[in-house]
Parts: sequence; structure tokens; C-alpha cells
Amino acid sequence: MLPRSVQNLIDQLARLPGVGPKSAARFAFWLLAYPQDQLTSFGETMINLKKDLIRCDKCYNLSDQKLCKICSDPSRDRKVLIIVEDSSDVMVFEKAGYRGLYHVLGGVLSPINNIGPQDVNIKKLLHRLADKRDDTREVILATDPSTEGEATAIYLADAIAKLKKLDKIKKNIKVTRIAQGLPVGGDIEYADPATLRKSLEGRKDF
Amino acid sequence: MLPRSVQNLIDQLARLPGVGPKSAARFAFWLLAYPQDQLTSFGETMINLKKDLIRCDKCYNLSDQKLCKICSDPSRDRKVLIIVEDSSDVMVFEKAGYRGLYHVLGGVLSPINNIGPQDVNIKKLLHRLADKRDDTREVILATDPSTEGEATAIYLADAIAKLKKLDKIKKNIKVTRIAQGLPVGGDIEYADPATLRKSLEGRKDF
Repeated sequence: MLPRSVQNLIDQLARLPGVGPKSAARFAFWLLAYPQDQLTSFGETMINLKKDLIRCDKCYNLSDQKLCKICSDPSRDRKVLIIVEDSSDVMVFEKAGYRGLYHVLGGVLSPINNIGPQDVNIKKLLHRLADKRDDTREVILATDPSTEGEATAIYLADAIAKLKKLDKIKKNIKVTRIAQGLPVGGDIEYADPATLRKSLEGRKDF
Repeated sequence: MLPRSVQNLIDQLARLPGVGPKSAARFAFWLLAYPQDQLTSFGETMINLKKDLIRCDKCYNLSDQKLCKICSDPSRDRKVLIIVEDSSDVMVFEKAGYRGLYHVLGGVLSPINNIGPQDVNIKKLLHRLADKRDDTREVILATDPSTEGEATAIYLADAIAKLKKLDKIKKNIKVTRIAQGLPVGGDIEYADPATLRKSLEGRKDF
């Protein structure tokens, strides 16, 4: 019974992650109260979202320049390279205060979804590490602590180890994995057994 | 550190009700995965949202025709007229299976916000009820059970009573107010005192 244009917008909004038909309707009625110029600007932002967007030549992060703002920032620590799945992960590490460089895989290995090493930016990472001019001293594997993220981390560690043996990658490059354990502010009582086991395995002197 | 177009979209999305910067970023990265044609269609839907939108001549509901789909539907019960604040309320009563007609006020009386009877569609409602050709037998006051909604309902009931006395509105038009009490599935233990009082006042034979 809603006008077609309103129903269309509700349908589109309801496709966003975690947005049900009720929230979508709430958003649509909210947008109905916008002046037309703000509505136009919102719509145009959406349409032009990917227009000038490319992948950084070096780290494959989303960028509007050939070399992204992080790779071209001389103040970043070029000795540390963190490997993440996606650009959204770059954002959260930035917020957490990380000041090294990134390499964005653009996905994780997932045999069930037919995603192999050739489908993510792994080859490019190994090339980067093999480059004599590269300053990396530590590679931090920061894929998700999920089955696929874990498998990808193991694959990467193996691949780097192999190339070290063949003297293609400097032997003094350290490979580390982000810590797993209880989240800050978490509650031991409600922690799952796997997380608790990880928090015991990773315990530190105090 | 995000490209400007992505940050712009996140900022726009974060203005939606109940959407924080985290959800906005999640939406934006989700939209980044859309093919361009879908992104364009989404943006255009937003831009054209209000383009052909008007208010129904009769009930003031949002519509794309002079007479909205509900008012022009011959199968609706023309004896019942429900008074709601907004078009979003029409949507929820439709979902609840209401089959009568509507009158959309477009707001509620709110002295604190300087909204008086002339700022909402009250005059038009009284004109409608005074029309000899109008079939209304019952007016259901369905403004929110808030202070302002309650005050608006009282104002409307008074105005209709006055016009009945002056013989401008048929005396057999009944005026009712939607019931207040415990929501279905609610929990008495957690109900607020005002709701409990209403549920006692409105008790029925069982």
C-alpha cells in the first residue's frame, strides 16, 4: 500500500547487512524528511562510490591514488607489515593505532568456495618480500581467527618459510600471528572453551 | 585513511537513525561489493524517492496518485476512519490487518515545538466528517500513547463533540481511542506502573 518509490527504497535498504524490513522502513521514512538536495547528495555519493576507487599498487588497499595514503606516508614504520583480509580490517587496525604498513589479501583461502592461493593477493605479497629493496623485518599474520583465516595464516607462514630456505626471502624476516584470547572487557564466565584454551596457551609472565 | 568517497558514504549512512559509525562502515564495505549497476539503481531510487510523491487528496497519506490506493480501493470499509500521526503508522496498521480508511494528521499538537492545530491536518479532518456524503460511523483516535499523542486525541475528541452539538457533524458518529495495556508477549513483571494502570482501567469481562 506504500507508494512504489518508498517501497523500492525499503527493499534496497533491507538488503544491507543486519537490516530487517522494519529498520529499512524506519530509514526510508527518515529519508523522506530530508530536503531534496541532501537526498540527491546521498544518492550521488552512492552512485560515485567506486568511480575513482582503485587498489593501491603496493598494498592493494582501497585507494583513490596509485599509491595509497598509508604506503606513501613517510612517517610509517616500514619494518612491520601486517597481512589482513580486507580494507575494512585496515580501518580497524588504523583505529587501534597500528603505524606499520599493510598488505591486503582481498580474501582468504576457502576450498569450499573454490578460492585458492591464485585468487587472493598472495603471490604479490611473496614478490614484495623477495624484493631486495623491501625493508620488512616482521610479517604479522592478521587474518581472522576462523577456520579459513587460520588456514590462510598457516599457508602464508609455510610459503614464506619455503622461500627463506631457497634464499629468496631474507632469513631475518620474522613471521608472527596476532594473539588470541579473551577480548578486553570480556567475561571469563561466558567465554567459549576454544577461546579459553587459546588464552591459556598464550599466557604470559606477569 | 579511507578514500574520500568511502568516508563520505560512511558519514551519510551514519546519519540514519540508530546507525553508528561502525554499522555505517559495515554498510559501506557491503555496498563496495555491489556491481556498479546495482549501486546506481540504489542511488537513483534514493534521489527519486520524493519525485512523484504527493499527499492523497482525501486522507493525506503519501501517494503517487491524487487519490491514494487505500482511499480508491472499493473493498475498504468506509464506515471506519482511523486517525494516525504519520504515513509510517498507516503501514503498521495495514500489516495488522486493518481494513477501514485513514486520515493522516502529519504530526501531533506540541506547544513546546510550536505545533498548533493549524499545523496538522485537523481542519481537513473536521471538514471531511462534516461532509454529508461521508460514510464514517466511527472515528478511531490512534495517535501515540505519549503526552503529545494523548493531548492530540483529547483535542480531536473535543472538536468533534463541539461540532456535533452545533449539528455540523452527525451525532451517530462514534469516537474511540485505541486500547492501552500490556503488549502481546509482554511480561507483567517488567511492565511500567503507567501501563499496568492502563491495563487495569481497560480490563474486560473474560
